[in-house]
Amino acid sequence: MRLRLDLGYLGTSYSGWASQPALPTIQESLEKALATTLRLEPSLVRTVVAGRTDAGVHAVGQVCHLDVPEKVNTSDHALRSLTKRVQGALRTAEISLHRISVAPEGFDARFGALSRTYEYRLADVSARKNPLLAPFTAVASYDLNIEAMNALGSALCGLHDFASFCRPKVKATTIRTLKEFSWTRDQDGVLVARVVADAFCRSMVRSLVGSCVAVGRGKVTQERALELRDLASRTSEWATMPAKGLTLISIEYPPDAHLAQQAEETRARRLPATD
Amino acid sequence: MRLRLDLGYLGTSYSGWASQPALPTIQESLEKALATTLRLEPSLVRTVVAGRTDAGVHAVGQVCHLDVPEKVNTSDHALRSLTKRVQGALRTAEISLHRISVAPEGFDARFGALSRTYEYRLADVSARKNPLLAPFTAVASYDLNIEAMNALGSALCGLHDFASFCRPKVKATTIRTLKEFSWTRDQDGVLVARVVADAFCRSMVRSLVGSCVAVGRGKVTQERALELRDLASRTSEWATMPAKGLTLISIEYPPDAHLAQQAEETRARRLPATD
Repeated sequence: MRLRLDLGYLGTSYSGWASQPALPTIQESLEKALATTLRLEPSLVRTVVAGRTDAGVHAVGQVCHLDVPEKVNTSDHALRSLTKRVQGALRTAEISLHRISVAPEGFDARFGALSRTYEYRLADVSARKNPLLAPFTAVASYDLNIEAMNALGSALCGLHDFASFCRPKVKATTIRTLKEFSWTRDQDGVLVARVVADAFCRSMVRSLVGSCVAVGRGKVTQERALELRDLASRTSEWATMPAKGLTLISIEYPPDAHLAQQAEETRARRLPATD
Repeated sequence: MRLRLDLGYLGTSYSGWASQPALPTIQESLEKALATTLRLEPSLVRTVVAGRTDAGVHAVGQVCHLDVPEKVNTSDHALRSLTKRVQGALRTAEISLHRISVAPEGFDARFGALSRTYEYRLADVSARKNPLLAPFTAVASYDLNIEAMNALGSALCGLHDFASFCRPKVKATTIRTLKEFSWTRDQDGVLVARVVADAFCRSMVRSLVGSCVAVGRGKVTQERALELRDLASRTSEWATMPAKGLTLISIEYPPDAHLAQQAEETRARRLPATD
């Protein structure tokens, strides 16, 4: 039986999603809480996640799946109670388990996803600083031109090799479809990027944001940024922005009837892939 | 020359506003940063604050004043630059210095205030949990009846002896005017209290919230709560709610022409007082 888990977390004190020896990770905390609550061997509890967030990155709409033995009671009532008990076992409000549900036929949290949506919050000099939002807002000590950032964001969209924005990884494709990359200012004047793609390679969102920042402060022209993208190799003309500003907002899936097909196609196209 | 400082902070890692030996406090961090930046003897840098928040309590609209020697340059330009340099010296985004300005004649951050406005955020069982807001949202493992809480909130307002809601303190009056105490649910269904009074004694807001919680979950009737208020002595029928849910929103001052009079009247009425 496959379960779908919807959750969020404040990533500040965690070394990212993926389990790593001797480091606090979301995956380890969650799997431990699940194993305890379900009374399963820890080695049997293996989640598969949609967006494998880096150290310090946050999430409000993360999705993962977990295969459990048939003996586990998966009635609506039992899953609501399980959600509460796992939340209790997590012993923190910084990881929030929103819901556990029975996954529809063919559901794969990672390969079944159509797209991932991220948000990046960046307070430049003119933004009003709200210390309550500081844990998930990066700070820039300069002013940024939002029009130039939006122009580059739009120009970067489409199907491209995004190798200039990715940490190199052997045998993994860096071809992605960037569906949306837009900037707005919120009521405090904080710059908020919305970034949507079929999938992202490692540090890609923060590097995309870095390219907009380089253009927004006048260090790189839009033409040069697009030229660097087309060279498709790692560049030092922009920075990978700090993890604290980045939040995974949501994972989009196709209608249930297309889930299995979507997963199969993605697997064929991307393996071995990153998210 | 008296300066007015407007600031905010995420109180999680601090033992409250007021300096205490060997504990991290907002006051100590701020005064240290001011002394370094202004190149003044640390013992000469003494801030006076409007709302002396407890350990773990947050603020977005805190106000304090500081008297500095005449040699300090207080031109608009110099104060803008000073604000930036003090923010740099603070070495954290969890304390945010919004503005330093020359205080108007007769200004006293503490005694000149007309009222203080606090907000308390409490996620009950039915609220959607947003882990990004968890550091400033308390959590309740039960459902709460907002109508009952609002009814009690209104009934508690007015000029009363609030001793039932205060930690006892020798020689300090506990008579206060509670101007507003209302509850709403935000878009996530989180209960948000807005509490306004001329001043609050120690732990008073969290204890007022505790009384509403006791009524909202059906443990205490409104009649009993008002009876306990009128007894004007510490009660155990409700809890002092956790500090993490509490944020100081703003401090209200009279028009400049009435500042000195307001400060004098408050001083006469309340000394020795808490805030």
